Amino acid sequence: MKSNGSLPIGVFDSGIGGITVLKSLAEHFPQESFLYLGDTARLPYGSKSRDTIYKYSSQNIDYLIGLGVKAIVIACNSASSHYHHNNINGNPIYNVIEPGARSAISVSENKKIGVLGTRATIQSHAYATHLRALDQDVSVESVACPLFVPLAEEGLDNDPITNLIAYRYLQPLLKAQVDTVILGCTHYPILKSSIQRVLGNSINLVDSGAALCTDLERDFRAEKIERSHSPQKISIMTTDSNEHFQMIASQILFPIKAHSYSVVSL
Amino acid sequence: MKSNGSLPIGVFDSGIGGITVLKSLAEHFPQESFLYLGDTARLPYGSKSRDTIYKYSSQNIDYLIGLGVKAIVIACNSASSHYHHNNINGNPIYNVIEPGARSAISVSENKKIGVLGTRATIQSHAYATHLRALDQDVSVESVACPLFVPLAEEGLDNDPITNLIAYRYLQPLLKAQVDTVILGCTHYPILKSSIQRVLGNSINLVDSGAALCTDLERDFRAEKIERSHSPQKISIMTTDSNEHFQMIASQILFPIKAHSYSVVSL
Repeated sequence: MKSNGSLPIGVFDSGIGGITVLKSLAEHFPQESFLYLGDTARLPYGSKSRDTIYKYSSQNIDYLIGLGVKAIVIACNSASSHYHHNNINGNPIYNVIEPGARSAISVSENKKIGVLGTRATIQSHAYATHLRALDQDVSVESVACPLFVPLAEEGLDNDPITNLIAYRYLQPLLKAQVDTVILGCTHYPILKSSIQRVLGNSINLVDSGAALCTDLERDFRAEKIERSHSPQKISIMTTDSNEHFQMIASQILFPIKAHSYSVVSL
Repeated sequence: MKSNGSLPIGVFDSGIGGITVLKSLAEHFPQESFLYLGDTARLPYGSKSRDTIYKYSSQNIDYLIGLGVKAIVIACNSASSHYHHNNINGNPIYNVIEPGARSAISVSENKKIGVLGTRATIQSHAYATHLRALDQDVSVESVACPLFVPLAEEGLDNDPITNLIAYRYLQPLLKAQVDTVILGCTHYPILKSSIQRVLGNSINLVDSGAALCTDLERDFRAEKIERSHSPQKISIMTTDSNEHFQMIASQILFPIKAHSYSVVSL
């Protein structure tokens, strides 16, 4: 067991989406501090190639480790799909795919599961692979939703435009009669109302960011990571200056408040 | 006059949008060759800050100059709005703002001009400044259309989704009774049918990329750039591998064909 409990947990995403994961983490672990890195100078990741996403993820992780963290959370499904190490220099690395898949298996009754994600995440088959490893009888219907990230970045939840786009994207899931849908991109919880409206209330939505808290809690209990006992501090860094980001981030985090926003160069 | 006529003209954009400019240039100058650079590993530019856009533009220009070009065309309005040099190491640099503004002034009868662009372009006031410098009596109505770039990258012209979004974005222009609208982002000509459908056929659409050909023709005549007399060759480079890009690019360029597509690191 390491004696680094007072260090923050590093969290990164290409942009605003990972803030939904940060919020879940901050609520579940009110005595932990967080260093969030949003790579807004290069966002989005989900339309980019495997190699480019891997390179950007490595740079983000190196940067956070350089600042001093006790664990890293990849709060981005596109990055989680393409970055498979679970430990770097003794720092455990958490991704959002495994907990999302486990959570979906545990709530689905008919074993028909839908996955929504970016083109990069869907093409990686990361969720389908994990879901079938957990239950070989599961049937998986995956849909790439490339317009959901820009809609979320614009904050357009429950808007007729988003509803129309959701209606088109979600038809294959309705046809496949899934009872559970994984929001396989950390931006998508921002559009939850529009997605639930099209799918109907009887379908379970799995927010893989929220599911991740269970993994961290398990590792805190196993003393794989040491708990902090200090007041929570949340520092948010982006690679580009962006007032729009700060506005949307503080709306998502509310009532939690970040202690600082700053712009950094990797 | 330089003796570098056989060199290609360098053209860059963040992604697919500049291909609309490349097509106009290739059609107007069938004996000129072109080196196109799409910075797809960092696209889009239009939601990023002034400093980041300037840095990326400088890197793209240095890269093209390093390969050997006789002129550079900034085929991106967001980059044109923030990169103001018109000559680097003897290479003339062309942007899309000035020719777009001139063309709009020449076709508008009521001197009420609309400008559509990314958030970066609209916030720079580049078009409004140029339009007013050309005619101080002109009235300008500018609208940022952040969802148009992802819609164009998806190739969704004349689609109910794009029509609905266009309907919302274009209301202020209809209210202001403009008779001319500048498509102030090189992605927007891809969505021309949807935009014209909402505005109606009596409103002039100015494609600033097409207007740029007039500037180049003037400088060829003035022997500021030397003409090539070789068969045309078009080489397209991107900073990320992307089959989707190649598919959309060849659709836009048709019937012109690129001689090569390659992935490069800046």
